[in-house]
Amino acid sequence: VYAINATHDASRRSWVESANAPDTDFPIQNLPLGVFRSDGGRARAGIAIGDQILDLAATLEAGLFAGAAADAAAAATAGPTLNPLMAMGNAASSALRSAASDLLRAGQDRRPPLVPMARAGMHMPAEVGAFTDFLTSVFHTARGGRLTRPDSPVPVNFRHLPIAYNSRASTVRADGAPVRRPNGQYRQADGTIGFGPCRHFDFELELALFVGTGNEMGEPIPLRAAPDHIFGFCLLNDWSARDIQRWEGQPLGPFLAKSAATSISPWVITAEAMAPFRAPAYRRDAGDPPPLPYLSHPTDQAKGHLDLVMEALIHTPGMRAAGAPPVRLTRTNFQHMYWTFAQMLTHHASNGCALRPGDLLASGTVSGPTDDSRACLSELALPADAKERSAFQLGDTDEKRLWLEDGDDIIFRARAERPDFVPIGFGTCRGRVAPSPAWPE
Amino acid sequence: VYAINATHDASRRSWVESANAPDTDFPIQNLPLGVFRSDGGRARAGIAIGDQILDLAATLEAGLFAGAAADAAAAATAGPTLNPLMAMGNAASSALRSAASDLLRAGQDRRPPLVPMARAGMHMPAEVGAFTDFLTSVFHTARGGRLTRPDSPVPVNFRHLPIAYNSRASTVRADGAPVRRPNGQYRQADGTIGFGPCRHFDFELELALFVGTGNEMGEPIPLRAAPDHIFGFCLLNDWSARDIQRWEGQPLGPFLAKSAATSISPWVITAEAMAPFRAPAYRRDAGDPPPLPYLSHPTDQAKGHLDLVMEALIHTPGMRAAGAPPVRLTRTNFQHMYWTFAQMLTHHASNGCALRPGDLLASGTVSGPTDDSRACLSELALPADAKERSAFQLGDTDEKRLWLEDGDDIIFRARAERPDFVPIGFGTCRGRVAPSPAWPE
Repeated sequence: VYAINATHDASRRSWVESANAPDTDFPIQNLPLGVFRSDGGRARAGIAIGDQILDLAATLEAGLFAGAAADAAAAATAGPTLNPLMAMGNAASSALRSAASDLLRAGQDRRPPLVPMARAGMHMPAEVGAFTDFLTSVFHTARGGRLTRPDSPVPVNFRHLPIAYNSRASTVRADGAPVRRPNGQYRQADGTIGFGPCRHFDFELELALFVGTGNEMGEPIPLRAAPDHIFGFCLLNDWSARDIQRWEGQPLGPFLAKSAATSISPWVITAEAMAPFRAPAYRRDAGDPPPLPYLSHPTDQAKGHLDLVMEALIHTPGMRAAGAPPVRLTRTNFQHMYWTFAQMLTHHASNGCALRPGDLLASGTVSGPTDDSRACLSELALPADAKERSAFQLGDTDEKRLWLEDGDDIIFRARAERPDFVPIGFGTCRGRVAPSPAWPE
Repeated sequence: VYAINATHDASRRSWVESANAPDTDFPIQNLPLGVFRSDGGRARAGIAIGDQILDLAATLEAGLFAGAAADAAAAATAGPTLNPLMAMGNAASSALRSAASDLLRAGQDRRPPLVPMARAGMHMPAEVGAFTDFLTSVFHTARGGRLTRPDSPVPVNFRHLPIAYNSRASTVRADGAPVRRPNGQYRQADGTIGFGPCRHFDFELELALFVGTGNEMGEPIPLRAAPDHIFGFCLLNDWSARDIQRWEGQPLGPFLAKSAATSISPWVITAEAMAPFRAPAYRRDAGDPPPLPYLSHPTDQAKGHLDLVMEALIHTPGMRAAGAPPVRLTRTNFQHMYWTFAQMLTHHASNGCALRPGDLLASGTVSGPTDDSRACLSELALPADAKERSAFQLGDTDEKRLWLEDGDDIIFRARAERPDFVPIGFGTCRGRVAPSPAWPE
């Protein structure tokens, strides 16, 4: 799954012209998988190519796939989710990718059926049985802990294990679904405890993986086998109610602060598509403990990390009314994360916990060391030497934010680039904050 | 769903003789639902009656159900789980219960097909999409926090909201499944961090509810509607690796300490079956804050609690070799819980979090105020004035335990009793501790 092969060849171009544009997220070297619906049809699997979607069911019916690719396409189109394809393992999705690349490359005369993205709505790519959220940026952790854990902003266990908690799968939605500001309990300014609309609503810019083949309960996954269980990646917005979190979070961790909504980008970038953008693991400081043996990457996985530039933007109602573009809040890189996805996955299964196809493992907020790579409002509103948070200016507009306001759009993007390879992108992960529901009578 | 009706009539007896024994868990007044398999057949839904199982599919095929009961039976038998029946709402399961009670009562000549429990294996009653674990015994919380949070053993938020965390659904198993001691990270005696088999493995005696009809994302469930969403109850063993928990648990709560395995009793006692055993809510101390309005039971739900005696027993390899019976560790009552299940469910959905049919909400360890109602080893090994835990004697045997040893069986039972009603039981929730797996090469 780490191998670079003919599908990554930078000279390969597509007969789908929009896929050859230099700024497209979806050149023929990407070929991410998703689930879409168009023209009143059923939700079905497709592959993004430029501004079009390769309809997998129709391509299979037209007899354009053979052998292993046909088996993979059949699994992908068996229902309205990619879980059956994920369960088949990465050799299957690799065969499908290779066949799709051949069908879409310039010079090919067999023309598989395409659907314009403009006519399609995107669905959840998988049924997410479980959603686990990690905390693996040492920069996010240090900034977050500076006020609340001044003696030890980065908890002592952070450098020994990838910290995580189980989050809520039932409220994960694909790009574009509205995000209602949650009601909840929090401590009010006068010290009393109240219940009402969250006042400190925030986003967190994260990367997530989809599990491919799972493991049986009781059977751990050694680190060298971890890549075989990683199907692909998406962007994830871990919407967070900071006031609720502060009040409910001890002693058992975040609960309702995180479960009102989670947004993901709808196209799953396969692990194979990311092969050229593998990167060395985080370079630990000299005084840091080495990972325990079960979390130590073998030499052949030295490039277990990902070099991926990630951005968060805000588009307020004011900006939209003025016809102004979104303002960038954050520009960061996944390489800043202290633990690799393989380490997260192996740690997760180390106690025998069963992972299943379609499970979602998110990295935690991908904050970097610099001010412009702070990847949530909670960090952005807290300058390095400040004693408390304050509203900050959005770009060169005259708007400020401390926390999210109703109507704000938060937009995530990500792009992988490397000399001699065609850059690939993740599409968008977008959500607009909607008002809290009234409490039912 | 709180109504007492003809199915609870104490004079009603069954033509299934074993259901009339005074000590049976499954008299005709109980009629819990489960999923079983016998004689190589497929997994299918049934109703427990004495030492027999009413085969719902066969009864439906024989034409013995009509109207609403037939619709409910059809949902129950549509697949190998009760989720479709749970989704129909409690009026459906009530109709099924009423029809089953009529078919099984003495004097009835229509004889539906039965399968002896001795010939059946029990499966998970539902596909559990999400498993949430609460912390609602103030006694468990106070004992657990005495050493680790001496300034505030009971966290200040405990009396304002039912504390909870998302736990792991993929490793919940029905009664009898082996429980492998997990591997994990923990601090060793010399202060270094190691990885290996958990040394402080524990049980927690809990009660859980299955969600019936769910709620849409973004739509809270007011407290007066909460009972409509509670399908039924089971016993739950929240197996806990205390050494892993102590090391990993800050700042985001328990993760791998709880996800290696969870055991439940396989028969779902319906909310209607428990109607006679409703009880007043926990009597708060004078200084306690009143619940906020959204968590305040309306007057007609004054009996929102459950009066249920719960027990935990241990059967060690030594006891089994000697032919000795299990030793009781705990005898407690669900009434000791500070929050009712309705309050837990309403709080869970208060931020718009979607609950779905088959979701499992567990109460947390059901410890009471007295020494004999301490419902986990962590409490049992810590006398009220001790500075540290020590091994304690198991009944009048010459065996001691501090933590669980390989081969130990932990057995939970529960029974509801009230004058003028026939007592009903929960069956057993049983698990045997198996050795840790070797770490894969």
